[in-house]
Amino acid sequence: MKHTLSVLVENNPGVLSRISGLFSRRGFNIDSLAVGVTEDKNVSRMTIVVDGDNYTIEQLTKQLNKLIDVIKVTDISKDSVIRELALIKVNASLSTRNEILQIVYIFRAKVIDISKSTMTIEITGNSQKITALEELLQPFGIKEMVRTGAIGLERGQKVIKYTINDEEE
Amino acid sequence: MKHTLSVLVENNPGVLSRISGLFSRRGFNIDSLAVGVTEDKNVSRMTIVVDGDNYTIEQLTKQLNKLIDVIKVTDISKDSVIRELALIKVNASLSTRNEILQIVYIFRAKVIDISKSTMTIEITGNSQKITALEELLQPFGIKEMVRTGAIGLERGQKVIKYTINDEEE
Repeated sequence: MKHTLSVLVENNPGVLSRISGLFSRRGFNIDSLAVGVTEDKNVSRMTIVVDGDNYTIEQLTKQLNKLIDVIKVTDISKDSVIRELALIKVNASLSTRNEILQIVYIFRAKVIDISKSTMTIEITGNSQKITALEELLQPFGIKEMVRTGAIGLERGQKVIKYTINDEEE
Repeated sequence: MKHTLSVLVENNPGVLSRISGLFSRRGFNIDSLAVGVTEDKNVSRMTIVVDGDNYTIEQLTKQLNKLIDVIKVTDISKDSVIRELALIKVNASLSTRNEILQIVYIFRAKVIDISKSTMTIEITGNSQKITALEELLQPFGIKEMVRTGAIGLERGQKVIKYTINDEEE
């Protein structure tokens, strides 16, 4: 089963190397990884999608928590909003443009670049939605695709916090 | 200056660890990193935003190209569409909801979750746009934020390809 882990880490040099080293030594296969800044400039949030049963993920979480850079690990597979961003460059001639635009409209995607023979489409959604669009565009010829990997936040008021004295909670 | 590198890699175990190890050994500071699958399941595309002058980036590219898993490195800082996805959970009471919704509307962002006291907003754009929204939401109280890191594709018909005999090109 695929698990989405939200890992808060301190922005120390080499933190990514230490975390990815742990994954590779333990033989965990990372499906996707996204690293970006948070509301605190000293803290980054890594969102890691990894395959494994509950026991394996528990072990992995324990190992991650042992790393000095890691502030908090949370499995956000349940009760979260998970989103991913993809850019897809697809062949689009004058005769197929309309058909592609219909698909884009239905998926609430956006055309962000166009040339004589191609269109570049931006889509956000869960992995299934992005894969569905990819499959529909396949017949036209996908020239290039890039995906960010999933990110997520827990639903409602819940917050994964890292300060001990948090006035808000 | 910030450079955005698009790195095509083979999906071998430990590839992320080898690449992040190179960055950390050489003292490069990664601003953001996004790893996702491509149109070919054996190939992942990493988008790495890194700070450095042209000479440094050139050296880094050479080092990356030496790694066996790396298929191709392209600096897509120029003439590309670059996008990032962020989710922002912000305090939103009955009295502030309207004001927040106006901001969301202007930024063409989306509300993807709501609770009695919070809203979660999804936004895509370049880093500047996301930072601008973040600053506008700051006064309400940002409870949590997660960003994917930037991804990008070159404009027009250009394609970063990795097969030598590519019928399309």
